Amino acid sequence: MSGLNEMFNPSSVAVVGASNAVGKVGHILINNIVNDGYEGKIYPINPKSEEIQGIKAYKNVKELPEVPDLVVISIPSPFVNETLRHCGEFGVKNVVVITAGFKEVGGEGVKLEEEMISILKEFNMNLIGPNSLGTIDTHTPLNTSFSQMMPPKGNIAFISQSGAMMVAIIDWSVTAGIGFSKVISLGNKAGNTEIELLEFLADDDDTSVVIAYLESISEDPNFVNHLRKVSAKKPVIILKSGSSAAGAEAASSHTGALAGSDLAFDTAFKQAGIFRVTTMDELFDVALAFSKCPIPKGRNLAIITNAGGGGVVSVDAMERFGLNLVQFDDDTTAKLKEAVPDEGSVKNPIDVLGDAPVSRYHDSLEIVLKNDDVDNLIVMVCPTATADADGIADAIIDASKDFDKPVIVVNMGGPSFINADKTLREHGIPTYVFPETAVKVVDYLARFEAVQERNYDNPIAAIDDVDKAAVEAIFDKVKADGRDTLLGSEAYAVATAYGISAAPIILTTTKEEAGIEAEKMGFPVVLKIASDKILHKSDIGGVKVGINSKDEAEAIFTEIIDNAKKAHPDIVPDGVEVQKMMDSGIEVLVGMIRDKQFGPMIAFGMGGVLVNLLEDVSFKLANGMTSDEIDEQFNNTKVSTLLKGFRGDAGGDIAEVKEAIKRVARLTLDFPEISELDINPIFVYEKGSSALDVKIKL
Amino acid sequence: MSGLNEMFNPSSVAVVGASNAVGKVGHILINNIVNDGYEGKIYPINPKSEEIQGIKAYKNVKELPEVPDLVVISIPSPFVNETLRHCGEFGVKNVVVITAGFKEVGGEGVKLEEEMISILKEFNMNLIGPNSLGTIDTHTPLNTSFSQMMPPKGNIAFISQSGAMMVAIIDWSVTAGIGFSKVISLGNKAGNTEIELLEFLADDDDTSVVIAYLESISEDPNFVNHLRKVSAKKPVIILKSGSSAAGAEAASSHTGALAGSDLAFDTAFKQAGIFRVTTMDELFDVALAFSKCPIPKGRNLAIITNAGGGGVVSVDAMERFGLNLVQFDDDTTAKLKEAVPDEGSVKNPIDVLGDAPVSRYHDSLEIVLKNDDVDNLIVMVCPTATADADGIADAIIDASKDFDKPVIVVNMGGPSFINADKTLREHGIPTYVFPETAVKVVDYLARFEAVQERNYDNPIAAIDDVDKAAVEAIFDKVKADGRDTLLGSEAYAVATAYGISAAPIILTTTKEEAGIEAEKMGFPVVLKIASDKILHKSDIGGVKVGINSKDEAEAIFTEIIDNAKKAHPDIVPDGVEVQKMMDSGIEVLVGMIRDKQFGPMIAFGMGGVLVNLLEDVSFKLANGMTSDEIDEQFNNTKVSTLLKGFRGDAGGDIAEVKEAIKRVARLTLDFPEISELDINPIFVYEKGSSALDVKIKL
Repeated sequence: MSGLNEMFNPSSVAVVGASNAVGKVGHILINNIVNDGYEGKIYPINPKSEEIQGIKAYKNVKELPEVPDLVVISIPSPFVNETLRHCGEFGVKNVVVITAGFKEVGGEGVKLEEEMISILKEFNMNLIGPNSLGTIDTHTPLNTSFSQMMPPKGNIAFISQSGAMMVAIIDWSVTAGIGFSKVISLGNKAGNTEIELLEFLADDDDTSVVIAYLESISEDPNFVNHLRKVSAKKPVIILKSGSSAAGAEAASSHTGALAGSDLAFDTAFKQAGIFRVTTMDELFDVALAFSKCPIPKGRNLAIITNAGGGGVVSVDAMERFGLNLVQFDDDTTAKLKEAVPDEGSVKNPIDVLGDAPVSRYHDSLEIVLKNDDVDNLIVMVCPTATADADGIADAIIDASKDFDKPVIVVNMGGPSFINADKTLREHGIPTYVFPETAVKVVDYLARFEAVQERNYDNPIAAIDDVDKAAVEAIFDKVKADGRDTLLGSEAYAVATAYGISAAPIILTTTKEEAGIEAEKMGFPVVLKIASDKILHKSDIGGVKVGINSKDEAEAIFTEIIDNAKKAHPDIVPDGVEVQKMMDSGIEVLVGMIRDKQFGPMIAFGMGGVLVNLLEDVSFKLANGMTSDEIDEQFNNTKVSTLLKGFRGDAGGDIAEVKEAIKRVARLTLDFPEISELDINPIFVYEKGSSALDVKIKL
Repeated sequence: MSGLNEMFNPSSVAVVGASNAVGKVGHILINNIVNDGYEGKIYPINPKSEEIQGIKAYKNVKELPEVPDLVVISIPSPFVNETLRHCGEFGVKNVVVITAGFKEVGGEGVKLEEEMISILKEFNMNLIGPNSLGTIDTHTPLNTSFSQMMPPKGNIAFISQSGAMMVAIIDWSVTAGIGFSKVISLGNKAGNTEIELLEFLADDDDTSVVIAYLESISEDPNFVNHLRKVSAKKPVIILKSGSSAAGAEAASSHTGALAGSDLAFDTAFKQAGIFRVTTMDELFDVALAFSKCPIPKGRNLAIITNAGGGGVVSVDAMERFGLNLVQFDDDTTAKLKEAVPDEGSVKNPIDVLGDAPVSRYHDSLEIVLKNDDVDNLIVMVCPTATADADGIADAIIDASKDFDKPVIVVNMGGPSFINADKTLREHGIPTYVFPETAVKVVDYLARFEAVQERNYDNPIAAIDDVDKAAVEAIFDKVKADGRDTLLGSEAYAVATAYGISAAPIILTTTKEEAGIEAEKMGFPVVLKIASDKILHKSDIGGVKVGINSKDEAEAIFTEIIDNAKKAHPDIVPDGVEVQKMMDSGIEVLVGMIRDKQFGPMIAFGMGGVLVNLLEDVSFKLANGMTSDEIDEQFNNTKVSTLLKGFRGDAGGDIAEVKEAIKRVARLTLDFPEISELDINPIFVYEKGSSALDVKIKL
């Protein structure tokens, strides 16, 4: 966002609502700006005072001697928009609105916020809030918030959608020794959204990791593509609370029932290369690691410990996280044997023993870090009778300083490590109390390495052998008929227009036509009553399989029409559909559920009647879907094992399956009017495939 | 264990190896015993000194003026057993051996430990160690360890199999404010095992929750039954690291491949009512809650918070843990409306707003705790500008003192809550920094309530309509033949002897016999080559299905024998098995994998050829298996949904399935020589069932 830099590093700040009355927000704001060390110009604005806290005050924004880089507003809500308009007219580009009483209170507040949004658009201004607690930049330094505490300076940017949580975290950060570059209270997001702020922070030199507590994500169908650009530069870790409504709304489809309510967020975050955490603990454990460590080359890990137990617990955690315990080569092993007594262990995890002097830690660290197979190192220290916590800390700092690898320290204890923890963190080494936390953060570091290696080619964009006009014509007809559900024959035509192999199905309206079409198709065929109003077609005798001749087809046509009339005298069916009976194959499902926020979400998994019982399904958003993601989606299912050939079986046509996923994605991106789509089953053969039942709802 | 009380609360303690040399373990031990406040008699034992640290010393144990309640030994390992024998002869009943150099060093050490065990048996002594760091009892008080720090006094007993981890935890507990009743370093477990100590601690008045860090579990087929008695009295929380070898060893069977290496421990702990955690964090978070809180009546939870965000995060966590958010009745809602301003929320989670004064917290707490639907309460405090952390802490203590319900406080911050945390914990209220932790511990509290409600009736013990002799005869024959795998006909006979419905299968050795048996059974039948040496019977033409007449059966007999000869000229088959072809039903699997430590582990799940792909299986240990556990095992699978009637289908005979589980459990408990058993599939019909393929390996 243009100008957002001045939001955080302005050369002048005006505070509308600045006050001399102790305890008032307008008093705290000026106080914090002054006391927390802001060095630029400060312009208090107050119509009734000449001077605020010893600083010359102005009656309103337009009277200022210059256009301030930033205006902070804290006056009653009915007056905010007028001031905002003055700001716009005066040329102000960045505003923070502390005042509450907008959208969050409903009624009149909603109107005020709508008006605010239109003023912002008119003057093209940046705005954080309203109902924001303010912003903090520890590097400028500038505290426009009414938080009484300035957090320690650091390189973690923190965006919070909850003001109280932000205050809590600032308070806690003092104890935890976590340093921030910027802390931003989002408020109602009437102006700048978290997405814009994330994009801005991607290029902020003071920030090396961005974390956020969010209760909602601003609507943006290109969320994945926008955020990929951020995660390509910096790790982004989000604690997203609350749930999406997508799953619940579309639960009438197979695919919908398979998608949990929170799935769209999970899917979007993963595809964007963002880490989603579920607890505050994890948010800050991981942020600390990213704020200190270089990004590792891979998932190989070595452990040095003075307690066997700590090593065992770490290895257990490594197995859970899928990290690799490095097996040392002969050279490293030989060197370690010189450094570690026989009673210890030179196999990873290296046990330097409870009596390990500082030098043994130092030597072991150097040997292990020199080994090219080692991507990450965890050093564990238990406060044994002889352990010199401070000396070991110094040794770790010294031995690791020339290596560009993450070194994570577990100082397992309390009082014994107060100094050591401080020293290590000051020297760029994160410390934790328990080994499992250290292993977890290594997993995150390595996952970020994988994010940066991602290939974002988009195979869906390349699909152009589709007949869009044909699909449009079908949809127009369905809409003209006042229906929202396509007949099987229509859905077949749509699938075919998009190059998805499906079993031919044709709507017939007379028995003669049914006979002719059946013969053209080749026997055996299936006949089904065609009506979007009859739901349980089999139950009323509306489906007959295994029809082997023209005569039989004609007779069955009549029988089915009669059955339908008997069961539903009030419904006029569209006719009878004739479908070719296909050889059975491996059954898969490809489906789509449309998320309000992120657009089409594509499902792939095991198909058949037990689909909702077996729940073997994997989801990806269609927007920006990559080849690697389709591979991942495919591999994330058990049915992929069947398709690859389970226990010596022939398997199925994997390329064809992936093609179906792509084409469903293309189709549902091209036609936003498709609200639900289920293809279940698709029979997959050794060569080729055939969709048996295509359901499309507009 | 008789006398274990004197291990921790002795009226006299002798220390063999007591020393005047500063820095020696024998010096630290006397130091710790004296300085940490032990009030009983202390007898230093040292052949060379008259006096140790000012206390009269003795040359050896036998010279003491009385039999000491406890002897602590810290002398070089070659001399330990002699001293131990002296102790035994002198009548000593409790010994702690600090000395290392036994089993853990291999070679000679293993022999020394074996000798130690035989001395213990001879004199019926309790012993902790060797290679123990010692024990601590904060109530006696007595510190026989060489930990330099005494942990805070409390009601948590902590057993650690790692000495260094124990020291680390004691160190950490000082910062964390966690109090212990007893801390026990297990060492090599040559004498008392963790199981015996857990049983002892179940009746220890100073202990209200037992936690343990364990790397191995002592072998005991009755582990589940023993530990159930402990968990009936007190919560037991274990961090068990490392893995069991059971899964890996038996991976040749279906059931074996489905069982992960760590599964036996998980299963045993669950059935014993013990909580297994995977991280140190969780171990102590949960221990803190149990050490402070009463056990709740159920899983209903209310939340009071001064920050909406904290409430949202808590509700997310509640959903993950399956806790219930109480919906307040009209009366409670009306009262809350008087206590909370309109801008807040009187719906659970209750938002008392960022400006909440102490009285608003107090009133809300009282109203909510009075509501009978509320089983648990979480109170969250963010350090907003106006929040009075200490005042709110006092209000929480006062408002909750008359209610026997868990109240958990989240003080979200650092410096602002130092006093409040301390005060609350001193008054029996656990505090945490983050809301998710509070929700997690409520889940544990409520799960313990469920453990105490368990019904341990054992339906397997009641099975007596089985023909044990028949099974013995079959196994004798198999062993006499030098085989370890039963033929299908033998396995069928075993199943039948134990009342498990199976498709009849008979071994025939001539074509005439095959014809006659097939006719007796009724057509259609299946013929299979009978040989434990031919593994892939279908591939060599050794299986033919759908045989419909006596003549056909005779012809096929000859064909199968010929095919087998061609494929395996060196193998003499046992004959050809004739099996009745059964109608197909819902396919389930019942299997058994024998765990070295815990005995037979019974598998139940979806059967058929895809069993190892779908992995729809649930395990229970047969020892002490209860009716409730069988129900749980059944319900934990997806195939149970099919058996209950999926989407209007008829379903299957559930009682028959559960009967099969019980009878397989009975069979594998009765015959420890069965090493593996797989019944897959069992066809389950609306009424009855039929096991198609029974595989038994000795």
